[in-house]
Amino acid sequence: MIAKTQIGIPSLVRAKAGALDRLGIYLKRNDHLSAVVLVSHGMVPAYVERARATLAANGIARDHWVEVEEASFETAAELFQSLRKETKAVVGLGGGKALDVAKYVAFLARLPYYATPTSLSNDGFCSPQSSLTMRGRRKSLAAALPFGVIIDLEVCKDAPRPLWMSGVGDLASKITAVFDWKLAFHAVGEPVDDFAALLSDATVYQYLGQPTFDIQGARLLSTSLMFNGIAMEICGSSRPASGGEHLISHALDAISARPRLHGLQVGVATYLMSLLQRNESARIDRLFDQAGFWETIKADPFSRDEWAGAIRMAPSIKEDFYTALSQEGAIDRAIALLDSDDRLRACFGG
Amino acid sequence: MIAKTQIGIPSLVRAKAGALDRLGIYLKRNDHLSAVVLVSHGMVPAYVERARATLAANGIARDHWVEVEEASFETAAELFQSLRKETKAVVGLGGGKALDVAKYVAFLARLPYYATPTSLSNDGFCSPQSSLTMRGRRKSLAAALPFGVIIDLEVCKDAPRPLWMSGVGDLASKITAVFDWKLAFHAVGEPVDDFAALLSDATVYQYLGQPTFDIQGARLLSTSLMFNGIAMEICGSSRPASGGEHLISHALDAISARPRLHGLQVGVATYLMSLLQRNESARIDRLFDQAGFWETIKADPFSRDEWAGAIRMAPSIKEDFYTALSQEGAIDRAIALLDSDDRLRACFGG
Amino acid sequence: MIAKTQIGIPSLVRAKAGALDRLGIYLKRNDHLSAVVLVSHGMVPAYVERARATLAANGIARDHWVEVEEASFETAAELFQSLRKETKAVVGLGGGKALDVAKYVAFLARLPYYATPTSLSNDGFCSPQSSLTMRGRRKSLAAALPFGVIIDLEVCKDAPRPLWMSGVGDLASKITAVFDWKLAFHAVGEPVDDFAALLSDATVYQYLGQPTFDIQGARLLSTSLMFNGIAMEICGSSRPASGGEHLISHALDAISARPRLHGLQVGVATYLMSLLQRNESARIDRLFDQAGFWETIKADPFSRDEWAGAIRMAPSIKEDFYTALSQEGAIDRAIALLDSDDRLRACFGG
Amino acid sequence: MIAKTQIGIPSLVRAKAGALDRLGIYLKRNDHLSAVVLVSHGMVPAYVERARATLAANGIARDHWVEVEEASFETAAELFQSLRKETKAVVGLGGGKALDVAKYVAFLARLPYYATPTSLSNDGFCSPQSSLTMRGRRKSLAAALPFGVIIDLEVCKDAPRPLWMSGVGDLASKITAVFDWKLAFHAVGEPVDDFAALLSDATVYQYLGQPTFDIQGARLLSTSLMFNGIAMEICGSSRPASGGEHLISHALDAISARPRLHGLQVGVATYLMSLLQRNESARIDRLFDQAGFWETIKADPFSRDEWAGAIRMAPSIKEDFYTALSQEGAIDRAIALLDSDDRLRACFGG
Repeated sequence: MIAKTQIGIPSLVRAKAGALDRLGIYLKRNDHLSAVVLVSHGMVPAYVERARATLAANGIARDHWVEVEEASFETAAELFQSLRKETKAVVGLGGGKALDVAKYVAFLARLPYYATPTSLSNDGFCSPQSSLTMRGRRKSLAAALPFGVIIDLEVCKDAPRPLWMSGVGDLASKITAVFDWKLAFHAVGEPVDDFAALLSDATVYQYLGQPTFDIQGARLLSTSLMFNGIAMEICGSSRPASGGEHLISHALDAISARPRLHGLQVGVATYLMSLLQRNESARIDRLFDQAGFWETIKADPFSRDEWAGAIRMAPSIKEDFYTALSQEGAIDRAIALLDSDDRLRACFGG
Repeated sequence: MIAKTQIGIPSLVRAKAGALDRLGIYLKRNDHLSAVVLVSHGMVPAYVERARATLAANGIARDHWVEVEEASFETAAELFQSLRKETKAVVGLGGGKALDVAKYVAFLARLPYYATPTSLSNDGFCSPQSSLTMRGRRKSLAAALPFGVIIDLEVCKDAPRPLWMSGVGDLASKITAVFDWKLAFHAVGEPVDDFAALLSDATVYQYLGQPTFDIQGARLLSTSLMFNGIAMEICGSSRPASGGEHLISHALDAISARPRLHGLQVGVATYLMSLLQRNESARIDRLFDQAGFWETIKADPFSRDEWAGAIRMAPSIKEDFYTALSQEGAIDRAIALLDSDDRLRACFGG
Repeated sequence: MIAKTQIGIPSLVRAKAGALDRLGIYLKRNDHLSAVVLVSHGMVPAYVERARATLAANGIARDHWVEVEEASFETAAELFQSLRKETKAVVGLGGGKALDVAKYVAFLARLPYYATPTSLSNDGFCSPQSSLTMRGRRKSLAAALPFGVIIDLEVCKDAPRPLWMSGVGDLASKITAVFDWKLAFHAVGEPVDDFAALLSDATVYQYLGQPTFDIQGARLLSTSLMFNGIAMEICGSSRPASGGEHLISHALDAISARPRLHGLQVGVATYLMSLLQRNESARIDRLFDQAGFWETIKADPFSRDEWAGAIRMAPSIKEDFYTALSQEGAIDRAIALLDSDDRLRACFGG
Repeated sequence: MIAKTQIGIPSLVRAKAGALDRLGIYLKRNDHLSAVVLVSHGMVPAYVERARATLAANGIARDHWVEVEEASFETAAELFQSLRKETKAVVGLGGGKALDVAKYVAFLARLPYYATPTSLSNDGFCSPQSSLTMRGRRKSLAAALPFGVIIDLEVCKDAPRPLWMSGVGDLASKITAVFDWKLAFHAVGEPVDDFAALLSDATVYQYLGQPTFDIQGARLLSTSLMFNGIAMEICGSSRPASGGEHLISHALDAISARPRLHGLQVGVATYLMSLLQRNESARIDRLFDQAGFWETIKADPFSRDEWAGAIRMAPSIKEDFYTALSQEGAIDRAIALLDSDDRLRACFGG
């Protein structure tokens, strides 16, 4: 027998300007005539209106229209329990939280899930996990890839600049994540899925070729983030998307007085890790320079001491997860870089 | 139920310098202890030797060691009929022909197939079709994606420059192929699979970011070509990889006194189509300039009259296949460009 | 493309005397070296001991050893939240409740689930749903088929006779369920999946050929029930396993002072439905006679008035679910049969 | 990850009286508007007419209408090469040969295949292999399960009695095939797929419950044979359907002056093997008695000497294939049984 590997992908992908106004059409075409819609708290009212309009125009019943404030397992379980029998699909509209909860409700109910991100701040809109708190602790819970991914490039392009930068930072992290994966192979024999690693790599290099702030840039960034989610599905682990830089960001979430956007933290940590890894630092620097990432960070700088603490804590965040931070002396070298590297020093206030 | 789409991907992918010398290890790990090896006629003897050595060192029995001269259905059927019961895998080593035949023999026998390309001249090493003649006529026959893709980046890097350029040309064609697909949607309603189109697009932009002639360039080019094959598997059609530029190349194959490498023909036709489509011509030009593609063409120029004939014949190559060539007046405009565009004019001798 | 339908089946099935003592071997072979074990409340201590022994002997760490009293979504969610990272599998040992909860915990955690029934009282050990209460109301929640099904035929053979009879009753219901499905096709156009219907049918006829109380009988009964679960997976609905007779049983659960075992209720309702359907009543009667089903019922008779109430309530249990009870006058005819049919009359006390 | 096993099944199954007249409807519903039809040589003209009529009435273009005389790889490859581009499906109508060739042509062309058996003489109508000669030698070639299985129960019921008996004989062989599989496990460690073995077993016991010559009997027999094909697909081997009794039949094909129908040979060999295995002989005898199998054999008896020769040759038919015939002294015991067992003695002429 030919043991070919089977993987799942979204059945419907639309990435174009104006896609939001066609959301109802997509549901209708797939006979999903009744949907629960989960919207991020504080969503731009005009987008909410456009979503309502397209659903109404296409005769999609809205069984619930829920504003999501908290991305917790408990919230998702609650929503699942209150689902009506008629519901045929779950729609998530907005940023990370609404999408994470919607994805998980859909998973519990085995309903098709339509991800409709309004910004490209991270790769969660097309990943097979939901980032949810459980009893107050953040976890990455196994869920399912979306049935549909609807990206309105115009809407995402117009998202606040820091959200866009967060996406750029999360994307860049694939470079150091894949490198950490290979280090883990050499150090402790953790198997690397070359296909997933290449796909993950490819997602970054694609965007590096044209990191512009226009529709085409949004298309490339969204494609990159999407394929990154697929890469995780392929190998059944977060390795192609998450290495030491993510550990540092998770640690920051735990100890910061005011945690920043995921991708902003991750982006800076990516540059730091690349120095430790001696891997593509110049290229990452150039990308961040061209894209305006450094500028965004400078506008609201981090605390150097929190970062030092986060770096110390990072290796204990995940058990049995080898990264460049696991190497002897790496922690001290990393902390020293906060002060000695010009780019990094400029990221910290005071 | 969640109608998630399932697709197949290769179970084993290795892209690195020296991968050829590990071929036997990969077969052994997967318990494929007995294999038929199909080698391209005229293959570099040193590569043949290295393949033999790694198979021998890992105890892989070679049930046959066949030199392939002709990529025909009849050859493949013949080889299939002479397979021994013990054979556990089929290995294709070399250029297009050996790989196309090996892929098809493996498909008939339902055996796992290891693609081991020695150059990156086209995307056939990881596509779900075999390009074979049947009763003397070239056809694209449905087969299966390889079980394993083993790319020795060093070997591919050292392939003759025209082969590498052929790969660059084949890769660039994804830009015009995807555009033709979208034209076909607007003109005749042919459905576009956005996921496949985005993946196909992504493959090119990835390489555009770093079109160098080194190991990293070979990694990017091979990854791009590989994902392109996957894109075809995803949508079950050749649309994401083949548009009007491929029609022109097929027509050239039919009427040229001396057809050139697939990707060299396709590359020039891609640039031509991009002018017709008013789509990314400058970017393609720049890529071909940086990569040395134009130079390679100039060193062995085409016949302008054969191209004019091929352009006229192209729309009749495939029925019901809308491209920019199908638009009114397009044929005449395309032929005029052969003389009026400087880049194109330089591609023709005399 | 060939749109072949893909379905999931358990990867490991063992049905033989003594299989319980090999549970640890099966986990070990699949590298599931650390497991949570959910055991039915009140389980025969000797079986618990044997499970402990085989796990210990094979070095399987037991991360939890939980006695399940209540089959609720809330219990399952709670257990899921307390899972340890090291856990590699979930084992359900015992009757319906432990298996339903274990199946759901495994689904939430995306862990492989080993079903180890100690009786064959219903088809839940290999179905893709979990029967759980949610906020106190019983629901059938989508979950996943087990990874492994371990049936110790000796253990199941020795289960109390009423449990065995419950399995016989649940199995017989496939005859009326499939008939109701076909009625629904003719009456309201509900599509019938012939493959699933035939598989469901086949499961009963297989057992009818040899309804004995020995190892071979246990093998046939367990096989029948298992393939019934697969039939549901195939068509993505409970139709091949559940028709009007299940509605009556669900209604009894809601209104009875003392609900009986699922399959005992379902079995009697099956005979009743078969009379309404004029479908195979004699065959069902003969099976119940040979198997001792009627006798078991007589030993602990039902309340005639509760049954009359349940029949009236049955059609409202599921919306849009056509059965023979939906036909004009069917309710009255059904209630009249409680008194006029000898077999049925004998099922009621007082 | 949950390593659930995925298997393929036919997407469309219809088993009912008059299904032949609805063939065109089934193709139309699936948008297969143009088909190649392969018909067995010598097919009842009325059936051919009915097939033509339903295809015409539903607007299905018949690209070819081919009468198949010889089931060879060469014939199938030839037909594949002459397929027209427009063809959307392959239909096989009739007995074994047309179905085997049609299945293989469809496999080569990756087209959906509709199996329309007119008798139930073996399990080939729904198996994943094609029995074809290659260079004159019979082989079992990997192909694909049909997309559709259309069984007209009335047509199959009216097939000549020996064809029906052949199906009964082929079905009974599952009892000895599964037993041989288990012997192979104990003797040489060949792994048994319990799920496939149980499904195979189940198919027989289902039919044993009601071996009648009517529509219901045809339904059960066809279901049994169909699930047997699925069992082979599940475990990727012919083990659940073929043991020592098939070796004897293959040997008879090779040495008989006039080989009989596959299932007639296999059925008698099954009874013989069951005696060797001390496994269910009485039950098989009773089935053959009730079904009229013994009578059919007596009407055209075998040659005792050919059988003795076939038994001697059987173990060499397949390498590495352990059966009860592999046990010490088994060949001599088997030949002695030809004379000593009353049932067997009656199967031989003169």
